[in-house]
Amino acid sequence: MNFSLPSALTMAILCGASAVYAQTNMKASDTEYYSPVPPTVTLDKGIPSDAIVLFDGKDLSKWKSEKGKANWTVANNTLEVKPGSGNIETTEHFTDFQLHIEWKSPELIKGEGQGRGNSGIFLQGLYEIQVLDNNNNPTYVNGGAGSLYKQRPPLAQVIVADKWHVYDIIYKAPQFNKDSLLISKGTVTVLHNGVIVQNNTQIDGTTEYIGLPKQVSHGPGPIILQDHGDLVQFRNIWLRKL
Amino acid sequence: MNFSLPSALTMAILCGASAVYAQTNMKASDTEYYSPVPPTVTLDKGIPSDAIVLFDGKDLSKWKSEKGKANWTVANNTLEVKPGSGNIETTEHFTDFQLHIEWKSPELIKGEGQGRGNSGIFLQGLYEIQVLDNNNNPTYVNGGAGSLYKQRPPLAQVIVADKWHVYDIIYKAPQFNKDSLLISKGTVTVLHNGVIVQNNTQIDGTTEYIGLPKQVSHGPGPIILQDHGDLVQFRNIWLRKL
Amino acid sequence: MNFSLPSALTMAILCGASAVYAQTNMKASDTEYYSPVPPTVTLDKGIPSDAIVLFDGKDLSKWKSEKGKANWTVANNTLEVKPGSGNIETTEHFTDFQLHIEWKSPELIKGEGQGRGNSGIFLQGLYEIQVLDNNNNPTYVNGGAGSLYKQRPPLAQVIVADKWHVYDIIYKAPQFNKDSLLISKGTVTVLHNGVIVQNNTQIDGTTEYIGLPKQVSHGPGPIILQDHGDLVQFRNIWLRKL
Amino acid sequence: MNFSLPSALTMAILCGASAVYAQTNMKASDTEYYSPVPPTVTLDKGIPSDAIVLFDGKDLSKWKSEKGKANWTVANNTLEVKPGSGNIETTEHFTDFQLHIEWKSPELIKGEGQGRGNSGIFLQGLYEIQVLDNNNNPTYVNGGAGSLYKQRPPLAQVIVADKWHVYDIIYKAPQFNKDSLLISKGTVTVLHNGVIVQNNTQIDGTTEYIGLPKQVSHGPGPIILQDHGDLVQFRNIWLRKL
Repeated sequence: MNFSLPSALTMAILCGASAVYAQTNMKASDTEYYSPVPPTVTLDKGIPSDAIVLFDGKDLSKWKSEKGKANWTVANNTLEVKPGSGNIETTEHFTDFQLHIEWKSPELIKGEGQGRGNSGIFLQGLYEIQVLDNNNNPTYVNGGAGSLYKQRPPLAQVIVADKWHVYDIIYKAPQFNKDSLLISKGTVTVLHNGVIVQNNTQIDGTTEYIGLPKQVSHGPGPIILQDHGDLVQFRNIWLRKL
Repeated sequence: MNFSLPSALTMAILCGASAVYAQTNMKASDTEYYSPVPPTVTLDKGIPSDAIVLFDGKDLSKWKSEKGKANWTVANNTLEVKPGSGNIETTEHFTDFQLHIEWKSPELIKGEGQGRGNSGIFLQGLYEIQVLDNNNNPTYVNGGAGSLYKQRPPLAQVIVADKWHVYDIIYKAPQFNKDSLLISKGTVTVLHNGVIVQNNTQIDGTTEYIGLPKQVSHGPGPIILQDHGDLVQFRNIWLRKL
Repeated sequence: MNFSLPSALTMAILCGASAVYAQTNMKASDTEYYSPVPPTVTLDKGIPSDAIVLFDGKDLSKWKSEKGKANWTVANNTLEVKPGSGNIETTEHFTDFQLHIEWKSPELIKGEGQGRGNSGIFLQGLYEIQVLDNNNNPTYVNGGAGSLYKQRPPLAQVIVADKWHVYDIIYKAPQFNKDSLLISKGTVTVLHNGVIVQNNTQIDGTTEYIGLPKQVSHGPGPIILQDHGDLVQFRNIWLRKL
Repeated sequence: MNFSLPSALTMAILCGASAVYAQTNMKASDTEYYSPVPPTVTLDKGIPSDAIVLFDGKDLSKWKSEKGKANWTVANNTLEVKPGSGNIETTEHFTDFQLHIEWKSPELIKGEGQGRGNSGIFLQGLYEIQVLDNNNNPTYVNGGAGSLYKQRPPLAQVIVADKWHVYDIIYKAPQFNKDSLLISKGTVTVLHNGVIVQNNTQIDGTTEYIGLPKQVSHGPGPIILQDHGDLVQFRNIWLRKL
């Protein structure tokens, strides 16, 4: 913009004292700068031009399993958990990033609570954003879809039954000092189908099934997708380094 | 999830000491809780069920202008700036919120830099997220589309020429103490066409055209859309209180 | 200051691009403001003039116990835990504050680990900064003196054997939303004998002896001093509301 | 501690719903850990054993000037600005740290506002904590003693006329990404004579006399003490790396 706010309007909003500069001769150009220039990003079918496409519907070339080759099922542009084959993880390791990932609960509904449509997305291999069929499927709130698993429930339970879910995840890694003590927690922001469910949430430590978060000094880590025994599907996975 | 991470995998990631609990007899249920339950949100054409629809394509009943009735142009499910008529603002005032808004640069390209396709979205009436035609239109980087105007450039310039842009904005208001001194800056996160351009950015104060940010103690405020003289269009505007 | 940094010096520090304004005609006065004026604080024997003196060495008039009157021992300008009498708490409740408190481990050393010279300071009655004889007395690190009890170890173990310890604590309360969900963790900064041991540490929830932190929506709360059965002494306790 | 809070007391504090775990069989030891062990710090005349003593009253061996040797006046265990000789800076460069420094306004009072007893302490050579005679000496509030110069006024004006002032400063450096864009502001906490005046304040950029803060990607930097032409004295300067 370059009009001042009308002062009557501004004043109507205010309810306290103001820190107002005694500016006399400033020019608009005084508060403008030209460098560094943010990188330009264009979009192709929603995928940013600077993204690393981790799964494009074709193959698992960017992934491995604990035992070697990743062998989850790839069909119809979709990646499906192969129960019993174990987790898969990206071969590349990351620090701070934005991750886009779409997932779908199994069409055949079975099980209850954590036993229904369960998978997970591990950031840096250590911090899980929960994936779970959340359609009429109560469970502990810090284990619901969109939770930072067993640490923070989502701000809302966002339900799109029988459809693809979308997670947009912005992650900033924790920092540790020379003594291996935590000095800044990692943070995560998650939009679930466009609804904010984690807003710059501080990550307390590793997301454990049994026991407490551990604060572990570490370097870059992979994205891990979890085999929890359910036929959860994924598609359209991309990541931008931040 | 409820499998532990394989320790070999975990160990491979680590590069430092770990804060590991001496847990002996914990059970999975020890780290689960059931209350408070996050509200359930469903989606209808992408609009969350708990959203306040500020513009649904039909009318300006949720808006006013400084002079009274908001009279920007409504046609084809679209809201268009009526140059010279002044800014419009919501009649309701808000504190913390998530705002979804779509905008489009004028089809007839004219002007340069800040003179091309300029508008803006003021959070609580005071803090502007810039709207600007950013297709091959250089300007000062802290005034580009997706900038917190004259405070913080976007992390990327996200271009979708001749198409609708989408902003998803998560806003947390600043806090002031009994002495009217700032104790916590407001924060804003912005996704621009799904790309993170502001990641929990602290807001230094009001976003001024001339001069410095002011730190002004205030209460709830409106969303303001700016008449900067250009035929910028908006559509599909909704807000969720946080 | 009002000299620019010598550019040679500045340049020597830099290792990347810079966001430099194209300022032409700014004046020094453009960046100066005069209101609101911070309150003036003077000091009398180290106590700020705007402090609430919670214990001045004389009596327990600002405190109560769970059962009614606070009856810990007051002698020689010192407050000493009366084992078995229970915790004491301030009658006034607080939100954000700076707390100064001095403490001393029992002269007669007995017990080990958590059993030696144990007490604690509860912020808003819920979040404990640990007090413990830390002179050659190993225990779990997240339970040491200066820890946010069972959540975060101190950044250093600061030992002043047989002398008075000083805690300077700056506390900001957590925030919860309309759904009782946590939206901002509380934070705490602690200097222990002048050494930073908690630096704007986020508080995960209540500091429990058994079990996990609870995230409980609450209003103002008291300062509680803990009776843990040991003859810990306190003196010179004051608090400033922030 | 290891007693639970009495539930009646706890309940009295609460005003909302609680996130309570369904813990059944947890043991106290489940939430305890022993590694990494925070370093032990002892104190000798108030100086932490892990501190780098930058000025011990004897000489300027840890400092240099822009022109080479630092030649401010050292006498009576005190360091005094030598007007006209220029700033002095540490030869060692630092990232995150705690800095203790004491200062005293000139005994001969002359000048007004910024012209009276002016000096400054630059963190990483770029971010100034203001030093100024603040005894009955009004000036712009964002330029007072304890201010982050021209960015943030102190939360209080802490006056100890004719005596030594003490600053305890905890500093965390800003972070920039691969595009040289700011991703985390630096932060600074300042206690002024034991009173909190900056509480984890985000640093907007360089602290300029004329013009706006610059956001400049940089590495480690020195502590700089400013020659502003006034006979300000310093003593007892030490720093701990964080």
